[in-house]
Amino acid sequence: MSELGKFWSRVGHLVDCELDRLLPQENVEPVRLHAAVRWSVFAGGKRFRPALLIAVGSILGAEEKKLLRTAAAVEMIHTYSLIHDDLPAMDNDQIRRGRATCHVKFDEATAILAGDLLQVLAFSAIADDENLNADIKIKLISELSKAASQMARGQQLDLESEKKKISFAELEEIHKNKTGAMICFSVRAGAIIAGASDKQMRTLTEFASLLGLLFQITDDLLDVTQSTEKLGKTAGKDLIAEKATYPSFYGIERTKQLAREVYLNSIRTLEEIPKDTSLLKEFAEFILSRDR
Amino acid sequence: MSELGKFWSRVGHLVDCELDRLLPQENVEPVRLHAAVRWSVFAGGKRFRPALLIAVGSILGAEEKKLLRTAAAVEMIHTYSLIHDDLPAMDNDQIRRGRATCHVKFDEATAILAGDLLQVLAFSAIADDENLNADIKIKLISELSKAASQMARGQQLDLESEKKKISFAELEEIHKNKTGAMICFSVRAGAIIAGASDKQMRTLTEFASLLGLLFQITDDLLDVTQSTEKLGKTAGKDLIAEKATYPSFYGIERTKQLAREVYLNSIRTLEEIPKDTSLLKEFAEFILSRDR
Repeated sequence: MSELGKFWSRVGHLVDCELDRLLPQENVEPVRLHAAVRWSVFAGGKRFRPALLIAVGSILGAEEKKLLRTAAAVEMIHTYSLIHDDLPAMDNDQIRRGRATCHVKFDEATAILAGDLLQVLAFSAIADDENLNADIKIKLISELSKAASQMARGQQLDLESEKKKISFAELEEIHKNKTGAMICFSVRAGAIIAGASDKQMRTLTEFASLLGLLFQITDDLLDVTQSTEKLGKTAGKDLIAEKATYPSFYGIERTKQLAREVYLNSIRTLEEIPKDTSLLKEFAEFILSRDR
Repeated sequence: MSELGKFWSRVGHLVDCELDRLLPQENVEPVRLHAAVRWSVFAGGKRFRPALLIAVGSILGAEEKKLLRTAAAVEMIHTYSLIHDDLPAMDNDQIRRGRATCHVKFDEATAILAGDLLQVLAFSAIADDENLNADIKIKLISELSKAASQMARGQQLDLESEKKKISFAELEEIHKNKTGAMICFSVRAGAIIAGASDKQMRTLTEFASLLGLLFQITDDLLDVTQSTEKLGKTAGKDLIAEKATYPSFYGIERTKQLAREVYLNSIRTLEEIPKDTSLLKEFAEFILSRDR
């Protein structure tokens, strides 16, 4: 197992435990709502954003216990966005992470409320974190709320872009909001908790932007090159929705090359951090070569 | 105009200005999303919760500028809950505050995202308030997120209660979560910002619980006694949905009497506050005798 594999598996487990502690149990009323929340949160997600947050924070010297809550909060916001995006009125997805989406397993009303609940529980989790001081918590909440609002805007732009010709600049704007903002927050949150310098913050923000871009490019590639079974979510739906994607602009081969360039730029950025950033390089490499 | 009328009209205007400053303008992309947010926020709501928050804070000596942001945040959370509750998958309401509900005027996807966006903007507003220190902001965010999570739970319980016999205790549990929690937060937030003592906080929390109860009882009464035109939202829908309400348990006359008892208890509570609480008494009186 690679260094990243071992790290990710270990902290992924810690994040799961933290989420289990933070989320209401399924036997607490209203049980249907809490079951829906847990159905989506514990659906076997990769915990990519939490692991990234913990990696950045750890590299810069923060204790893990200071990072866990915020990492769990990021996953809550991410999961809420998946639940709402999957709704019939939005992307109308039946399958996610290899199983029924929340509104299919439960019902639409419950899925909307499960998303709403996860969103506030994320802010609750950070506000009540006893391992962080109030100033850091406010900074985290301020940035998290901005990232989440960008995500909502990105989803709106994405929905509006379907079946209409959009420019490349518009495509990038969608991605920056919809995917990039939360990846950027994950990196910055780790750095904020570790008390990073302004210079480190700028470098890491640049790294995060490139990582977010790489994530989106490979996401688009996977949609056209992989099966639904492999992805655990509906494949080929960008094509069906006539969505603007990197492959639709550049073709598959040129998109793969672009991904490689963004990857190289991202790891070059890390050279400015005077710490052992091998874990972050492996993250970028993982995204470049991921197959789901 | 009564003392309360003058106060409410003045602070209602201030809250509207604050909301206008905090919410993205309609010409900012995605314009449809921001137009939807503004459609629902500026639909002529009474600003009851913000006015209550500012009244409590002012009585206890807080400067108004310290109260405004949180008051606006409360209205954002309240409006988000109305937008989501009105959705076809939930209460399926076409009319709210006398005009088309958000998903009718725009579309379902936009309405879901408008609610989501308002929810995070509320946390953003408090986190970025330069008139409050970090400790107070964290306290407010912690309590607001809990109140909002209770609201989501209350809505789920409410939906599940339709067309099934529920006990009186279950009815009260729904109201306590769905309506009571945010009214309680409004009162407590004013007190938190003013630096109220523990004793004052307990007394005001008791007052808020009674006010929330009174609000729900009169809401149930209005649904059976008023017209849709007068209410600005669909009247008689509790009956159609066979919903458990105070009038369905007690009949109209006994419910009116109950409202009067709760009102009297609420103003009795205020006697323990060694300040001029006439404004709060008028609030309770307003709710008792409201006709919409």
